[in-house]
Amino acid sequence: MRSDRVAVVGVGQTKFEARNPDKTYYELAFESTKMALEECNVGVKDVDSVVYGIYNDLFERQIMPDTYVHDYLGFFGKPGTRITTGGATGGYAFRAAYSEIASGLSDSTVLIGVEKALDCFDWAQFKSTPEVLKSIAYSADMTWEFPLGVSAASSYAILATAHMEKYGTREDQAALVSVKNHSNALNNPYAQSPMKLTVDDVLSSRMISYPFKLYDCSLYTEGSSSLVLMSESKIRELGIEDPVWVLGIGSSNDKSFTGMRSKDDRLGRYGDIADLRNHYEAARMAYRMAGITNPLKEIDVAELHDAFSFTEIQAYEAMGFAEKGKGGKFIEDGVATMDGDLPVSPSGGLLGAGHAVGATGVMQIGEIANQLRGRAGKRQVEIKSGKALAHSIGGPGSSYATVTVLGCEAK
Amino acid sequence: MRSDRVAVVGVGQTKFEARNPDKTYYELAFESTKMALEECNVGVKDVDSVVYGIYNDLFERQIMPDTYVHDYLGFFGKPGTRITTGGATGGYAFRAAYSEIASGLSDSTVLIGVEKALDCFDWAQFKSTPEVLKSIAYSADMTWEFPLGVSAASSYAILATAHMEKYGTREDQAALVSVKNHSNALNNPYAQSPMKLTVDDVLSSRMISYPFKLYDCSLYTEGSSSLVLMSESKIRELGIEDPVWVLGIGSSNDKSFTGMRSKDDRLGRYGDIADLRNHYEAARMAYRMAGITNPLKEIDVAELHDAFSFTEIQAYEAMGFAEKGKGGKFIEDGVATMDGDLPVSPSGGLLGAGHAVGATGVMQIGEIANQLRGRAGKRQVEIKSGKALAHSIGGPGSSYATVTVLGCEAK
Repeated sequence: MRSDRVAVVGVGQTKFEARNPDKTYYELAFESTKMALEECNVGVKDVDSVVYGIYNDLFERQIMPDTYVHDYLGFFGKPGTRITTGGATGGYAFRAAYSEIASGLSDSTVLIGVEKALDCFDWAQFKSTPEVLKSIAYSADMTWEFPLGVSAASSYAILATAHMEKYGTREDQAALVSVKNHSNALNNPYAQSPMKLTVDDVLSSRMISYPFKLYDCSLYTEGSSSLVLMSESKIRELGIEDPVWVLGIGSSNDKSFTGMRSKDDRLGRYGDIADLRNHYEAARMAYRMAGITNPLKEIDVAELHDAFSFTEIQAYEAMGFAEKGKGGKFIEDGVATMDGDLPVSPSGGLLGAGHAVGATGVMQIGEIANQLRGRAGKRQVEIKSGKALAHSIGGPGSSYATVTVLGCEAK
Repeated sequence: MRSDRVAVVGVGQTKFEARNPDKTYYELAFESTKMALEECNVGVKDVDSVVYGIYNDLFERQIMPDTYVHDYLGFFGKPGTRITTGGATGGYAFRAAYSEIASGLSDSTVLIGVEKALDCFDWAQFKSTPEVLKSIAYSADMTWEFPLGVSAASSYAILATAHMEKYGTREDQAALVSVKNHSNALNNPYAQSPMKLTVDDVLSSRMISYPFKLYDCSLYTEGSSSLVLMSESKIRELGIEDPVWVLGIGSSNDKSFTGMRSKDDRLGRYGDIADLRNHYEAARMAYRMAGITNPLKEIDVAELHDAFSFTEIQAYEAMGFAEKGKGGKFIEDGVATMDGDLPVSPSGGLLGAGHAVGATGVMQIGEIANQLRGRAGKRQVEIKSGKALAHSIGGPGSSYATVTVLGCEAK
């Protein structure tokens, strides 16, 4: 229970790749954590606790993978807690790491998001990439929805078609998101899918689940991202420079049965899936905590969760960057491009940088921290008001949504 | 970031049972959560966030089971975070729930630990109880230790034999723990294994993994436990009575490879497994935060993690109730029995009440909260100094350990 602030002081990540056959998940976690600790010159002895974001137990058929990371990294003796909340694992793990410090339990916390699959699998059905997708499909409710064939893509496709029907959003508008994010990734040395694409390339790519074509979808990724979080008093004590303060966190979980989210009912219990009300709610909470009233003006740069291109369009609206239903126009108007007024996902996002599930939300927050500290290299955007946002979602129909607002002090 | 205190204000649980074929895990969670909320007269609208403790994704072959509980209980809109840290899941989830409030992110949090297995399993190998044990064995490192046949029992047996060798602890002393806890469970209507046993019954029961016989081992359990946690200001606002304050939390994760914990090395990196140094460290942290200097005198009642009888003996020492190596004598002296100076596990502990993994640590903390509030029915112990302790561990060789100290105000 403290009254001082919490900041991100160190950022590290591995290259995000489709497969990383030569490294275990502990080795990946070691690489990103070493980078984050060295960056702020913090040793293991100055770490009070560790928070892990690791998506599931099926990819590696390993219960409690976090304990083996903890061991390998030499954190024994210190508390370590693992968070799993689907695709939003990294974002919710950041919430937990913030709470570790803000609660007074720790003065410094290392947050590690790591993802890898298949090393240990000897089951025939887990041998190929489509089987990774099957494993992810175990995220759908196993009693009622998995038997219907709900997958990550088909579940998010329902949200996209609802938005198309209600607001007239078009496939070529979503394609612009894919073009932008794959192109942004060209300047990110850690990105999995840097690519120069055209709208036609996206529209003519192989159909996955209408309206998603191949280039509307993020890929399976392996990798690790780490952050060092610290209390203001510890930062002063260690003389650490360029802290990036946590200004706001908002999180909201909605109905998880995709079938129950297809339309609002007469009692208003389910919401309209064209408008993802938990994304709106998470943003509202984060803005209230951060004292932000005009996000489009006050946010310099954002990393939005684009597991699928259309999801980023829906997020423009939920984050208050665009009016309801005007997300498609927002990308057409060029506001979200690198030279626009509010660059979105300079890292390349999930489409371009990759979606290493547990690591993704951590990578996104690391990216905005680096942007605010002026350490984003070739993809550095202009920092004006000194505030940036990351948006992390997961679960069937994005039942999890969390929004983090960071800020740096004026130089 | 707040300066007021955090308390437990509501406690609920289902009966712990070997199998619960008629209820899904969401229905179990509903039952314990309804009980906890009704007890303190708090409605869903007064809940700011939810923390889930659910052990693994293999028992139900379900990734993110928490999202379906959240949905079923009507918590949509609110943040929900899932913690998994092996057998210590419930204890670490309590740490996260405390942090939710102490950080200022929430004023009231519901903590739900729930466990169930097999409903959805159609794989032949998951049909029978020994296969549940196989699933639990996936907790051992899949690369190096699982192939050697390390299971929960064999991993903890190594700790027990180390204690026997170093301190002369005997099987009949461990049997006294089993006799005590199965007997305590006779007064707990929610317990799975209430039994009147003798030391001879325990010693002559079937060998599982030396030195553990059948009655030295806790059983696989299904069930749910819930707590309502609240900030002091919210408690005053709602006029809630009998809050039980969180005085201290300490958590420490040690080496996880059982093979690496067999003996200390010359650099002192591994500790001696006869003395579980992370249990000592977790207790030290919790006592420091709670201002406790003489635990044997200041703690009125404790729930210790007795997945295996010998583990409770090691915990007497780590918690500072007995001197190092004197845990066996401590149970012989009768200090830990219901009419002793420091009753241990009046609920029946894991041996008597059951070990519903994610729910276990939550149940233990609920038990000490009820003891401190004078609501423990037939198993009520005398409350003198008004402080009680719960100890939750997990992982191969108990790589996770967390200790929670609660306190009530003098009446």
